[in-house]
Amino acid sequence: MTIDLKPGERLDDLQRNHYQIIQNREKFCFGMDAVLLSGFARIRPGEKVLDLGTGTGIIPILLAAKTQAAHLTGLEIQSESVDMARRSVKLNGLEERISIVEGDIKEASGLLGKGMFDVVTSNPPYMIAHHGLTGEQEQKAIARHEILCTFEDVARETARVLVPEGKFYLVHRPFRLAEIIRTLTDYGLEPKRMRLVHPFVEKEPNMVLLEARKGGNSRICVEPPLVVFREPGVYSQEIYDTYGY
Amino acid sequence: MTIDLKPGERLDDLQRNHYQIIQNREKFCFGMDAVLLSGFARIRPGEKVLDLGTGTGIIPILLAAKTQAAHLTGLEIQSESVDMARRSVKLNGLEERISIVEGDIKEASGLLGKGMFDVVTSNPPYMIAHHGLTGEQEQKAIARHEILCTFEDVARETARVLVPEGKFYLVHRPFRLAEIIRTLTDYGLEPKRMRLVHPFVEKEPNMVLLEARKGGNSRICVEPPLVVFREPGVYSQEIYDTYGY
Repeated sequence: MTIDLKPGERLDDLQRNHYQIIQNREKFCFGMDAVLLSGFARIRPGEKVLDLGTGTGIIPILLAAKTQAAHLTGLEIQSESVDMARRSVKLNGLEERISIVEGDIKEASGLLGKGMFDVVTSNPPYMIAHHGLTGEQEQKAIARHEILCTFEDVARETARVLVPEGKFYLVHRPFRLAEIIRTLTDYGLEPKRMRLVHPFVEKEPNMVLLEARKGGNSRICVEPPLVVFREPGVYSQEIYDTYGY
Repeated sequence: MTIDLKPGERLDDLQRNHYQIIQNREKFCFGMDAVLLSGFARIRPGEKVLDLGTGTGIIPILLAAKTQAAHLTGLEIQSESVDMARRSVKLNGLEERISIVEGDIKEASGLLGKGMFDVVTSNPPYMIAHHGLTGEQEQKAIARHEILCTFEDVARETARVLVPEGKFYLVHRPFRLAEIIRTLTDYGLEPKRMRLVHPFVEKEPNMVLLEARKGGNSRICVEPPLVVFREPGVYSQEIYDTYGY
């Protein structure tokens, strides 16, 4: 299979099933958060999965490799990302399992239907619209900042598209943890499992992985810390395993 | 200073200011949670502190040693614990700084007044009333299970007795984290700082330390994991430091 790359684009090997992904360093490249989320999510054979704000399609493509999900849908608002994601799906021969839909997270349940998915995943914009870096290239800014949707939009639409007892897997920044838990429970999504990701064991976490269940009871399992580096420059074994090296 | 011990009671050295505490193994002895909470709380000179459900007074006595709090009040419903706490306060010559009040957490703001404290601390019962161990001795059961008050009672009374911007420090079980964050925010107590306590670094946490602020914004600082054991039988340096060995 050959594929036409556009100016600035490159192919990256995902270390899984020989899958590759088209990215553009000038625009937005997936990070460790997407990879860790794909390792954290527990998806059973035959389940239908929706990824909200899929970008270049990294999460559906990784989950297609790692799980026996029946079908994965990626919803993305930025046309250029949608185009890259669709070409990556084709490149990997995944047209039967992955659909990339162009559209707004705020309208997800209207576009895709209520109660249609067993699992929702999301690596949403982390930063409040007016916080964080400025002067970023627009495409990056939209992926990182809550410019086009807020976490509340993500939670509300997730609750609508999930089946009863459906699961939501997300990755976010720890500084927003209290607000995230509050918002999830506002929409009947009960946090059931949490893992904090620490660059080093003695450092503050820089990511939080969460599993919530639609209509669950309020009992959460907090897992051991996920430590990224064993020593400076050397990943921990768990990170090597998650990346599939 | 000599003190009369009642049958079954013993004196334990707190490794701080030569303070001691009267306890009864058959009833309820303080655990590592109280010690870690006293290390986690940040109390400024001159502040007024209330400990809800103080038991034998361990938290006010440790905070009297570790901080320059102007005054500490311990509220406790069980008469026998109140009696032990009062004798420990006297034994340590702390009658000027610590008051032990017999009463119900559910009526704290009625008993002690609204907006009267800069800081509230609490090591409340962790277990839902019908969960966990049964057949315990009654005094232990009341300290451990939500028999006489729920976490919601603790949060509601804390919000009432605190000054605006006042701080609440608590220790609890991680399995209730989502519910705790939800309940705190229901009462305008915004989680600002969190630390998970892991027996070993690769194990799930068994305690969570939280700081909430009355009327704060929803930004939380999640701290590095607090690891109790460096290796089996050997505490980590941080634990030795907290205990004052």
